[in-house]
Amino acid sequence: MPIHIAIDIGGTQLRAAAYHPNSLEPVTVMRIPTRDEHTTPLERLQFLITQVWPKDETVIGIAVAAPGPTDPYRGVVIEAPNIPGWVGLPLRNYLENHFHVPVALGNDANLAALGEWMFGAGQGHAHLIYVTISTGIGGGIINDNRLMLGTHGLAAEIGHVTVIPDGPTCGCGSRGHLEAVASGTAIARWVREELEQGAKSSITIDEPITAKVIGEAAQSGDWLAVSAIARAANFIGVALADLLHIFNPSAIIIGGGVSRTGPLLLEPMFTTMQNHVMNPGYLEDLILRQAAFGDDAGLMGALALARTNFPE
Amino acid sequence: MPIHIAIDIGGTQLRAAAYHPNSLEPVTVMRIPTRDEHTTPLERLQFLITQVWPKDETVIGIAVAAPGPTDPYRGVVIEAPNIPGWVGLPLRNYLENHFHVPVALGNDANLAALGEWMFGAGQGHAHLIYVTISTGIGGGIINDNRLMLGTHGLAAEIGHVTVIPDGPTCGCGSRGHLEAVASGTAIARWVREELEQGAKSSITIDEPITAKVIGEAAQSGDWLAVSAIARAANFIGVALADLLHIFNPSAIIIGGGVSRTGPLLLEPMFTTMQNHVMNPGYLEDLILRQAAFGDDAGLMGALALARTNFPE
Repeated sequence: MPIHIAIDIGGTQLRAAAYHPNSLEPVTVMRIPTRDEHTTPLERLQFLITQVWPKDETVIGIAVAAPGPTDPYRGVVIEAPNIPGWVGLPLRNYLENHFHVPVALGNDANLAALGEWMFGAGQGHAHLIYVTISTGIGGGIINDNRLMLGTHGLAAEIGHVTVIPDGPTCGCGSRGHLEAVASGTAIARWVREELEQGAKSSITIDEPITAKVIGEAAQSGDWLAVSAIARAANFIGVALADLLHIFNPSAIIIGGGVSRTGPLLLEPMFTTMQNHVMNPGYLEDLILRQAAFGDDAGLMGALALARTNFPE
Repeated sequence: MPIHIAIDIGGTQLRAAAYHPNSLEPVTVMRIPTRDEHTTPLERLQFLITQVWPKDETVIGIAVAAPGPTDPYRGVVIEAPNIPGWVGLPLRNYLENHFHVPVALGNDANLAALGEWMFGAGQGHAHLIYVTISTGIGGGIINDNRLMLGTHGLAAEIGHVTVIPDGPTCGCGSRGHLEAVASGTAIARWVREELEQGAKSSITIDEPITAKVIGEAAQSGDWLAVSAIARAANFIGVALADLLHIFNPSAIIIGGGVSRTGPLLLEPMFTTMQNHVMNPGYLEDLILRQAAFGDDAGLMGALALARTNFPE
């Protein structure tokens, strides 16, 4: 049977899986650390692909989900955070020359949107917005059943929508972007600042304060943690109301680690959207739900890209 | 020869024109006031169409640009500002039953984007954002050579992107939307307030203060007027930076009355975009320019829709 190979490149792990058509159960799946002392990430990726390569079946294409900005038209990783040296890397050409099969490349959050649309929480929605909230905030947009890419493949950077003009500085250098006030990193920073100012909480200032710790405290009813999640949800809701006006989608899918807080995040987010939307037509038939895929988002996205670009 | 009929419905004027294929020179063109004391706007529209209807040629379709929210899928005018009674009006069905030719309907700002893309300042740009700044702020977006509509046709409401959370109340009832701080109406309001507080200007508080008056004063170098335009441009630039991150277009086209101030608007707008964009990739190959069509924007848009939906 024909085989698609899906790759998810992360800052800490490289993952690969081989799939038969019409199945989400991988024939083979493998993961290795992105870095070690003896080999480069590119050598490790190449090794990983040979490990999932089928012995007696034909590979009809490889699709790769890469972190950071990518150019899907030229197949280039523009800059991969946490992978030193991956700047302007022509990964598609490199892999095609090495494995002699067609290769496609996309940004991991963009592809996660495609994966949720094809296989997950967004099935049947021609117009869909996917937002992933973890250390940073990324996104992907399906418009009229197609992944939106833009001129150079840089579309759907939802984390870099301005929500507070002249607000805190974002990792990108601009100010007041959504990512700077509502990412896992921003949530943790806010809780730390509140604790320093004497806020009461089950979280103590001596432990490592992460979005995960805050999420767990919020689930247990900790007021500061619940407020931190709701505060982030409010900013995300403002940005999503903007995106409703721009796209008029029928589904918003929220993924990433912070989304595991579920209703603690989604309920205040929806309330803010209701308050900011210009007319109720935008909320008609709209669903807001958690993503179906957690850690598998990138891999499912790469598989969706492989099936889109390399049909049997 | 086959004929397309294009209609532009405005609050004050109804316009219609008949076109041969491959020509932007109308065979017939006519305009009448939207309202009079004896007939309804719908009767007047019907009359107008019969006036441009060709005697010896075949009409292959009518396309209509309507103000306010429309549902292009169902062919319904959801609500037309300044046309009393046009709420949930099934205009497509009405015209098809009356004229026995296929009819298509769209929001005027959306269609203006389509017109600029097909015939005007946006030709050759697969990904394009059009913003019209007049009394209100509207928009249209071309993604991958297609007009973006969304689930119910409510997409591209660029005027209702939040630029100041908890800012001034917008006409839609929400707060801090772009339209509430950067439309012609908002520009005029700001100038009036500044004059009331003693600001110096060639504009006096006794005359009617409109965006047109302010634009003319700005062209003559009036400091307050120049500041008013630049202030609006700054807000629009923030919103456009967001849209660059979301769409990664290769062209931004600015239309509407306020755009006639040209560089006074576009230069501060571009500076703000530069300051707010997360990386220079979004500005690479980007063009920012005035729309080609002024008062003809709606008519050209309707013609573009007719040629898209009803090819010969």
